Amino acid sequence: MRALVTGGAGFIGSHLIDRLVARGDEVVVLDNLSSGHRSFIAEHLEAGNVELVEGDICSMDDVSTAMGKGIDTVFHLAANPDIRLGTRITDTDLKQGTIATYNILEAMRVAGVQRIAFASSSVVYGEGAPLPTPETHGPCMPISLYGASKQAGEGLISSWVGTFGLQAWIFRFANVVGARGTHGVIFDFIHKLKNDPSRLEVLGNGLQEKSYMEVGDCVDAILHYMQHTNEPLNLCNLGSHDTASVRRIAEIVVDVTGCHDAVIEYTGGDRGWAGDIPKARLAIERMLESGFDVRMNSEAAIRHTAECLLEEIGLEE
Amino acid sequence: MRALVTGGAGFIGSHLIDRLVARGDEVVVLDNLSSGHRSFIAEHLEAGNVELVEGDICSMDDVSTAMGKGIDTVFHLAANPDIRLGTRITDTDLKQGTIATYNILEAMRVAGVQRIAFASSSVVYGEGAPLPTPETHGPCMPISLYGASKQAGEGLISSWVGTFGLQAWIFRFANVVGARGTHGVIFDFIHKLKNDPSRLEVLGNGLQEKSYMEVGDCVDAILHYMQHTNEPLNLCNLGSHDTASVRRIAEIVVDVTGCHDAVIEYTGGDRGWAGDIPKARLAIERMLESGFDVRMNSEAAIRHTAECLLEEIGLEE
Repeated sequence: MRALVTGGAGFIGSHLIDRLVARGDEVVVLDNLSSGHRSFIAEHLEAGNVELVEGDICSMDDVSTAMGKGIDTVFHLAANPDIRLGTRITDTDLKQGTIATYNILEAMRVAGVQRIAFASSSVVYGEGAPLPTPETHGPCMPISLYGASKQAGEGLISSWVGTFGLQAWIFRFANVVGARGTHGVIFDFIHKLKNDPSRLEVLGNGLQEKSYMEVGDCVDAILHYMQHTNEPLNLCNLGSHDTASVRRIAEIVVDVTGCHDAVIEYTGGDRGWAGDIPKARLAIERMLESGFDVRMNSEAAIRHTAECLLEEIGLEE
Repeated sequence: MRALVTGGAGFIGSHLIDRLVARGDEVVVLDNLSSGHRSFIAEHLEAGNVELVEGDICSMDDVSTAMGKGIDTVFHLAANPDIRLGTRITDTDLKQGTIATYNILEAMRVAGVQRIAFASSSVVYGEGAPLPTPETHGPCMPISLYGASKQAGEGLISSWVGTFGLQAWIFRFANVVGARGTHGVIFDFIHKLKNDPSRLEVLGNGLQEKSYMEVGDCVDAILHYMQHTNEPLNLCNLGSHDTASVRRIAEIVVDVTGCHDAVIEYTGGDRGWAGDIPKARLAIERMLESGFDVRMNSEAAIRHTAECLLEEIGLEE
């Protein structure tokens, strides 16, 4: 396989590339290094297993350049990583999500590339969906601008499958956590404790309860599911078996960092931010039926992530 | 009510405006007159009941100008009217559908406009959905680029509801037909017979089977449903009770036009075009439960439309 990984220098992308290289695939990365880091894939670049195209998914020229490198399968992971931006600047997800996904698909059509895997999200389900939420839930009414862009990306992909004969795998991710995380609640908590070890401010009341999946499990699940399904359009939730509360995450991070005197303070309210979904859990029967199961459930994934990020970030200035 | 109707000089828009004016609402129209016609709303313009802003939904400046006119409710109907364009030029629906809907929502947010009704479509359900298809069907996987843009519009609206507190009504339309139609199968058939009364070419095998709704029923259903629902986000299929085949439509148009010698020729295949859905029928229980029922079923709507369009188009050069 010769794969193009958008966002390949980022959190999930770099883990995916570790697996692709390990199994002998050739990899081209398209990344603007805005939240990704060259260091995440440095060993593969030096070994000549990965080629980096430093460019932007928002630029059709950059996308076409990367797509022109003999690609047969695209892993489209790049997106605005910060779901919370949507309330301040409202076109970030439109540009970096929806329009960028159009760029990818149109460049695939022009270059004759046939297969795409897409990182969608549990947030497409919106609020009030039954928990755990199956892939067949409808209507999907996302409440965040990020969620709207993921849903739009799914629709663009399904329309390219229906109109131009593409083959696609759409994965709706739970909260993916792990080493090299560049954003998210555990990352934020460690940075807050590094800044002030005496207190930890938690957005919302801490009762938000979501499912967490370790990034190694996530990328293994992607590759496994793609090997075991072959419909024109394949859709699968990816998550672990249970959930963890933000309150529990705060306790784990305090424990792992050793900041045992930190006072955990809650800003109140049932959401971390406008557009946050307080409770989310995915039905993972499709993933399980494909023969894949996670190694870590939510708490184990969170503790492992806290340990990895503590080592990466450090508590000293 | 002071309403902004995008696409208000178009097919469905002009019928909606007839109703709004009749009940005493003030109306601003935003239309670029690309497929709409000033003549469709001429009497209201002359009477001073409607103000026309000749502008494009793709231009944020034009949208902001229209939105700044003291609007309280937006009816967002404007879109690329030709679902079949998507296979030739792939960014039409992205620009005129998805990005234009973003423009509308962002201008609403900036101007403080709180209510929106949106013309979505049965094509968001994609292929293989159970027939008749209820609003709760999932996953929605559109197969046309037009369908993808309608789904993206729905997601943007639901995210604006969730993030900025908008109130919205999303209507998934069956095939809407009637007087002042500017596109679609009946319109096409009459133009083909005008061009050559001896033959009628039908795209596909004629066995495509869809539900048709008369435009007067459609706009009445919109206004009725908005008056009888009050959730933050309200979603409703709009259609009639039954379906008609393209073959039957061809027969009705031949009958109404009096071109009884026309040979009906089928190009073959189960679709009219790439991205066409051969069979579509909407579950209309939500509409019925709101207390509204259609006056015409599919065949009656088709015959009525053929009669209206024959008068508008004429068979003579």
